[in-house]
Amino acid sequence: MVRRTGRRPGNPDTREAILLAARGAFAEKGYDGASIRAIATGAGVDPALVHHYFGTKEKLFLASVEAPFSPIDLIGEAADGDRAELGARLVRVFVRVWDGPAGAAGVALLRSAVGSEWTTKLFREFILTQILRRAVPKLGLDAEEGRLRMTLAASQLVGLAMARYVIKVEPLASAPPEAIVAALGPTVQRYLTDELPGVFPPE
Amino acid sequence: MVRRTGRRPGNPDTREAILLAARGAFAEKGYDGASIRAIATGAGVDPALVHHYFGTKEKLFLASVEAPFSPIDLIGEAADGDRAELGARLVRVFVRVWDGPAGAAGVALLRSAVGSEWTTKLFREFILTQILRRAVPKLGLDAEEGRLRMTLAASQLVGLAMARYVIKVEPLASAPPEAIVAALGPTVQRYLTDELPGVFPPE
Repeated sequence: MVRRTGRRPGNPDTREAILLAARGAFAEKGYDGASIRAIATGAGVDPALVHHYFGTKEKLFLASVEAPFSPIDLIGEAADGDRAELGARLVRVFVRVWDGPAGAAGVALLRSAVGSEWTTKLFREFILTQILRRAVPKLGLDAEEGRLRMTLAASQLVGLAMARYVIKVEPLASAPPEAIVAALGPTVQRYLTDELPGVFPPE
Repeated sequence: MVRRTGRRPGNPDTREAILLAARGAFAEKGYDGASIRAIATGAGVDPALVHHYFGTKEKLFLASVEAPFSPIDLIGEAADGDRAELGARLVRVFVRVWDGPAGAAGVALLRSAVGSEWTTKLFREFILTQILRRAVPKLGLDAEEGRLRMTLAASQLVGLAMARYVIKVEPLASAPPEAIVAALGPTVQRYLTDELPGVFPPE
């Protein structure tokens, strides 16, 4: 491939310096506590440059964890449609993305997420602010119960990612996508929308 | 603590050399292909010494992945009792062990398992030979369907370990054990014993 020299996508050193400062700030102060201004200072650049390279704080966070896709956009895609099929749609979107070209980056993200206490903290903050917090209203879940419901669903989906894509344990790793949807769809559906006696006891 | 000098638990260097050779052999040749004899040769010791330090090949494998407990023993414990409560018993045993003192070692094992391609391969071999292969008959599962059923259950349990113990995402991380059993028990039960249309289509 011929490298275009007319316009370049910014200075890679500057970009990396911003990402490095962002990872540190998000892990240390959390997503809400980390400001673009402080990240810019940490990287030794002007805040305007951070916006220039990454746009919003959300996009900077996605870039700093090297997320190969935007989870909340995918959840939004699955949210539309018959409510009784919500679980199946979420699993179908999940498998489509992880079976696809972004899957390798997803595996790398999971590997790095559990690599150290520090990266785990960054990943936890990512799940909390970029997925759970925004998915509860997007999926029309009860605000009180929604978070536990979402983390239950997440436990099944993260486990699928581990078993099928990271550890690659057979026969799950080679099972057809629709078999995964048929198996896990009702699980995710139940966690999100069904009564869960013993989990949410009646008042 | 006063170190007893009368009898010592073997030479730690020899023990480590055997473990190192065992990890290499199990990852490269698999559990079945790796012989005690070859491992002993790799470590530069007599095969009798390997047996002396570790007993069986199975125990050597458990030690080489630093498994803090024997999964198949725990599965055996959960196997006894009313079949309709099998899923709940498996989740209860799982949470008891991971919530307990062995949990930290379990987290370390999972972290190391996904740390590199090499350790992942060792961990996959561990799951296949030490858990799946032996759990299918122990749980009275159909030989044909049992493996996929077990890997589906494993995907939920590994996901629970990731979400609750490694990533520690709230409110799942602090939920009472019996709430976890109430939520995940039916999932594991369904994967193991129920009809799964779309997964196992009728002949």
